[in-house]
Amino acid sequence: MNEEGSRFLPGAAGSSVFAGSRSLAEVAAVAIGETTVGAEIAASRSATGAIDRPMAQTRPFAYLEPHIEQGPVLEMEGLPIGVVTGIQGVRRLLVEIRGTTAHAGTAPLRTRRDAFVSAVRVAGELHRIASDDEDVLRFTVGRFDLLPGSPNTVPDLARFTIDLRHPELDVLDAVTAQIVAAVREHAGPCDGEATVLSTVAPTVFPPDVQQLLARSAEALHLPYRHIVSGAGHDAAHLARICPTGMVFVPCRGGVSHHESEYATPEQLAAGTRVTAHAVAVLAEAVTSLVC
Amino acid sequence: MNEEGSRFLPGAAGSSVFAGSRSLAEVAAVAIGETTVGAEIAASRSATGAIDRPMAQTRPFAYLEPHIEQGPVLEMEGLPIGVVTGIQGVRRLLVEIRGTTAHAGTAPLRTRRDAFVSAVRVAGELHRIASDDEDVLRFTVGRFDLLPGSPNTVPDLARFTIDLRHPELDVLDAVTAQIVAAVREHAGPCDGEATVLSTVAPTVFPPDVQQLLARSAEALHLPYRHIVSGAGHDAAHLARICPTGMVFVPCRGGVSHHESEYATPEQLAAGTRVTAHAVAVLAEAVTSLVC
Repeated sequence: MNEEGSRFLPGAAGSSVFAGSRSLAEVAAVAIGETTVGAEIAASRSATGAIDRPMAQTRPFAYLEPHIEQGPVLEMEGLPIGVVTGIQGVRRLLVEIRGTTAHAGTAPLRTRRDAFVSAVRVAGELHRIASDDEDVLRFTVGRFDLLPGSPNTVPDLARFTIDLRHPELDVLDAVTAQIVAAVREHAGPCDGEATVLSTVAPTVFPPDVQQLLARSAEALHLPYRHIVSGAGHDAAHLARICPTGMVFVPCRGGVSHHESEYATPEQLAAGTRVTAHAVAVLAEAVTSLVC
Repeated sequence: MNEEGSRFLPGAAGSSVFAGSRSLAEVAAVAIGETTVGAEIAASRSATGAIDRPMAQTRPFAYLEPHIEQGPVLEMEGLPIGVVTGIQGVRRLLVEIRGTTAHAGTAPLRTRRDAFVSAVRVAGELHRIASDDEDVLRFTVGRFDLLPGSPNTVPDLARFTIDLRHPELDVLDAVTAQIVAAVREHAGPCDGEATVLSTVAPTVFPPDVQQLLARSAEALHLPYRHIVSGAGHDAAHLARICPTGMVFVPCRGGVSHHESEYATPEQLAAGTRVTAHAVAVLAEAVTSLVC
């Protein structure tokens, strides 16, 4: 339920409650405008006549999730299957550069503490920090504001977000430390500060589930590679309570969450076949345990 | 009337009509919300009983305007008087950098056309172009937006304003050409374009009026320097129809259009004395012409 979080944030509402990451009361209380998740579910149940049943307490034997990659790697490399090794962690930061406002016409450039000039220097340095040889680290500035925001006024505040992702928490921590130091060091003559807003820890899928999916692809003669998921999934929560894995298939141009999102029937069939093969192997294992 | 343009833009409404820069009808039609300049003047006249009189058709013999500097130069150099050589020209530009949106988690950095990354590179280059040895050129980015503006989305559009000022139109033209070329050249892999939105040509005050003010300062034993006005004034319009000059005095921290704007009584008196001395010289000249 509510995996995307399109209306009610955060997403993965159902799987997070099922796996114990969040409580049912916490998710039910999430509000938007005049309503809450709980009120909307009650209204929907009343309208459809659905029966309210307690959440299943069974612990799954395993959890497998096939998905489009939502990125360009498999398509670029011409591979039909990605065996997902885990879901990278996400850290959000806020950077604030504080200077002094001044008249755009009268203040000589050398006398200014222009927040934009400092922010550009800081951002250039952050882009250097974020470029790694393997191109694994993800660094995105998606929002940037200047205040007071008037074309003829030297801005005294530049404020921007950083979305930082990597499969290893140690790397997130190390890069965060570099960012915090670089913002302080390169903001002069302004004052710069970077603050951590939130962190979602990386998920690592068990090696034996990865191996199961890789052998399934091999058995079906489908070439594959190991790949990290850049986006979050229900699997991140299920991984807390049972052996979990994911299978990726290519999607056109790496585009997702957009009307032009597309994968061919053949690509989707390949991912389904690998998943079904792995499910069959798991079913045999369950049967042998039960019998 | 309405020199600042705080409510109705553009400013210098009275002087621009008096000097023939704009027509009375044009200024009267300027609207904000439900009302216009003409309607507000009529309402004010009706409320106060003021008489509507035709605009004076006399051409002034000369026009002198004393003012605080609205910048930090005189205070930094410890000089009580600035003899203003002219009012610098203002050019407004809009820069747009267009890339491709992508998921902040899934798109490898090397595959991205990130509008922010390109904008930072472009802005760094523009800051290099804008730094001149004499520190005369004024370059300000006061507004900067990223679209779609979501922290976890690679932006496909960076849009920012440039406020460019210099006393010489040739320099404004040359720097504009450099800016347009640099935005195109350094925006890769995105597409960058800089567009001129508006230009206010520089004003040059006549050398003999500058000399009159300089000699007045000397006669009063007040040290002075020549200085360019960064901000616009009524004098820019009056300069079209009669010999015009301005006298600057220091203001605290160069601050203007702010509650903390301040000049000491002594500083204001010095500017007034220089202006009065020059007016006396001009009055003698008028008398000699008339008699």
